Amino acid sequence: MTLGIDDLPVRDELRGQSPYGAPQLDVPVRLNTNENPYPLPEVLVERITERVRAAARDLNRYPDRDAVELRTKLAEYLTDTAGHRVGLENVWAANGSNEVIQQLLQTFGGPGRTAIGFEPSYSMHALIARGTGTGWISGPRGADFTIDLAAAERAIAENRPDVVFITTPNNPTGNAVPPETVLALYEAAQAAKPSVVVVDEAYVEFSHGASLLPLLEGRPHLVVSRTMSKAFGAAGLRLGYLAAHPAVVDAVQLVRLPYHLSAVTQATALAALEHTGTLLKYVERLKEERDRLVRELRAIGYEVTESDANFVQFGRFEDAHAVWRKILEHGVLVRDNGVPGWLRVTAGTPQENDAFLDAVREVQCLVGATPTPPKEQSA
Amino acid sequence: MTLGIDDLPVRDELRGQSPYGAPQLDVPVRLNTNENPYPLPEVLVERITERVRAAARDLNRYPDRDAVELRTKLAEYLTDTAGHRVGLENVWAANGSNEVIQQLLQTFGGPGRTAIGFEPSYSMHALIARGTGTGWISGPRGADFTIDLAAAERAIAENRPDVVFITTPNNPTGNAVPPETVLALYEAAQAAKPSVVVVDEAYVEFSHGASLLPLLEGRPHLVVSRTMSKAFGAAGLRLGYLAAHPAVVDAVQLVRLPYHLSAVTQATALAALEHTGTLLKYVERLKEERDRLVRELRAIGYEVTESDANFVQFGRFEDAHAVWRKILEHGVLVRDNGVPGWLRVTAGTPQENDAFLDAVREVQCLVGATPTPPKEQSA
Repeated sequence: MTLGIDDLPVRDELRGQSPYGAPQLDVPVRLNTNENPYPLPEVLVERITERVRAAARDLNRYPDRDAVELRTKLAEYLTDTAGHRVGLENVWAANGSNEVIQQLLQTFGGPGRTAIGFEPSYSMHALIARGTGTGWISGPRGADFTIDLAAAERAIAENRPDVVFITTPNNPTGNAVPPETVLALYEAAQAAKPSVVVVDEAYVEFSHGASLLPLLEGRPHLVVSRTMSKAFGAAGLRLGYLAAHPAVVDAVQLVRLPYHLSAVTQATALAALEHTGTLLKYVERLKEERDRLVRELRAIGYEVTESDANFVQFGRFEDAHAVWRKILEHGVLVRDNGVPGWLRVTAGTPQENDAFLDAVREVQCLVGATPTPPKEQSA
Repeated sequence: MTLGIDDLPVRDELRGQSPYGAPQLDVPVRLNTNENPYPLPEVLVERITERVRAAARDLNRYPDRDAVELRTKLAEYLTDTAGHRVGLENVWAANGSNEVIQQLLQTFGGPGRTAIGFEPSYSMHALIARGTGTGWISGPRGADFTIDLAAAERAIAENRPDVVFITTPNNPTGNAVPPETVLALYEAAQAAKPSVVVVDEAYVEFSHGASLLPLLEGRPHLVVSRTMSKAFGAAGLRLGYLAAHPAVVDAVQLVRLPYHLSAVTQATALAALEHTGTLLKYVERLKEERDRLVRELRAIGYEVTESDANFVQFGRFEDAHAVWRKILEHGVLVRDNGVPGWLRVTAGTPQENDAFLDAVREVQCLVGATPTPPKEQSA
């Protein structure tokens, strides 16, 4: 008999689990992981190559453990784009925002502590909580996927979590959380106990609204997390970062693995940060395409959640997974996040989006996936 | 008043702590972090550049989450060099062996569980245990820094740890653990409770003896961890890996952060794996230099621990830190690991080692750092 995971002395809570991750399928149109469809411009590819060549010549040495040049450039990017001055001392970077979140939970969560998120939201928050021994509390969202402030405040007051996650724009639903709601939740969290509020802004560059970075002023328990995966078109780079009070940046260094950011990662990220102007132009194109997806899906008759991200949540379906499979048969991969009745599609190139729209038009006819009328919204 | 770490709601066990890491000082001769002194050959730098250029053209997409090509090549390297066949299904890779160890502790350790190491040993084992909520047990070593089997077996029987770390060659002492001791500790650990034994072979390519990889046969709770930082001259790459039963490889995927290994990291590591022949020639040079350091330090009159690594532990000093500082004044940075009476020096190039030997000869005269005679070994 072959030995399996559950024959090993793994932690009890891991028994019967499967690894997280969307299916990586080889299909013509992949709109399932919120990747940026535009490859990096060739001039940036060459700049990456130059910088990595220089880094490779020194690869026998450990990288800059504190990633000073990279954090300085990330701080400049934030200052330039978010209308709030941050410096090196406010910024920390890691291998993807997942590692940023893991370090935050190792510092402020962990065994005997709890974290709350308002679900459906980015499911890695709960998974990383599990991985760090942090108790997870599933906070509420309304039927329209907004955060009902009174209900959320009640959940915070009752559970007194150590860490509060607010994803805005939210994934997988796409909608942003109003700044006044974030502020009220910060106050509610501080009233319950001294706790850290993490605003996950992975998709903020695609938003109609502004970054919440200016809220950091005078709020030492607030953290804004970011990523280069989406707006920078660099999902393959795995570079996440945060902005916060300098004491937070000092604190996560107590749990970070030393030399966690490789020299090639730092070199590649620095090259990309030299080309933010070009990359943000792609973001503008994607915002237009995202708005077009919302319009056209509604014109077809689907229900669509407001989107401030590079993806759109649409529905509603009696059997979302069956529809997901039908769309896949048309060569288009979207995401079934397990939100009952809904699917998520990433804004791709105009051609990819056309292929997707053609597919959902046909699917609607083929399997009778007629969207439920908006009034029956208590899904 | 400026807000500090302890003013934040950090975990209690982090209060008053400082981040791990050797001082990164700009001195002519750096022999403090066991880096390989030989830069990668230019042909390999160019190969890295080519592979990274290709990866950069696809950087908008997430990397191969399972790193299949890389793990396959790592398996081939292990099979070729360790005399034991392993395949893709036996190998897992992460951002440095630190992340490998973190994933193992998240899977097999964590809250309510314990891990043991025989100290002094690689101090990150204990630190990562703390970071993952795993209780840490400091197991014993003899005065000569070997593992006293009876004492170690007793520590295992008494504490019944969930994870056992055996570092061989050991860091910072340099000596290897005999295979029969590893086998006996594996048996002792299994007798106490089903537990995972991690053999940390970060320095094994520099050893006079062979890898313990063949011990994996028939031992599903044994894990061998490795790194490309030392023998591959790629500390800046941050690529650690493990070999184990396929069920272990499946299990760590329950806690790994998805897409943890960037596309540029995978590309760079694959390039290096095309040049193992060249890189292992540098290892041979370093072994000769390591043996020379042992001989010459003994000739000067120092006490030296047997070394199977790319570094040498020498002493003994009444005030090791004062001697460390004196050597630094000669432009040579060695490591004070906090082992009372001892310092550690990395084997560098012949010129660097000469500079080090000149420095310790002068230091001996200057501060009267006469080594304690071997008979007074109860330090």
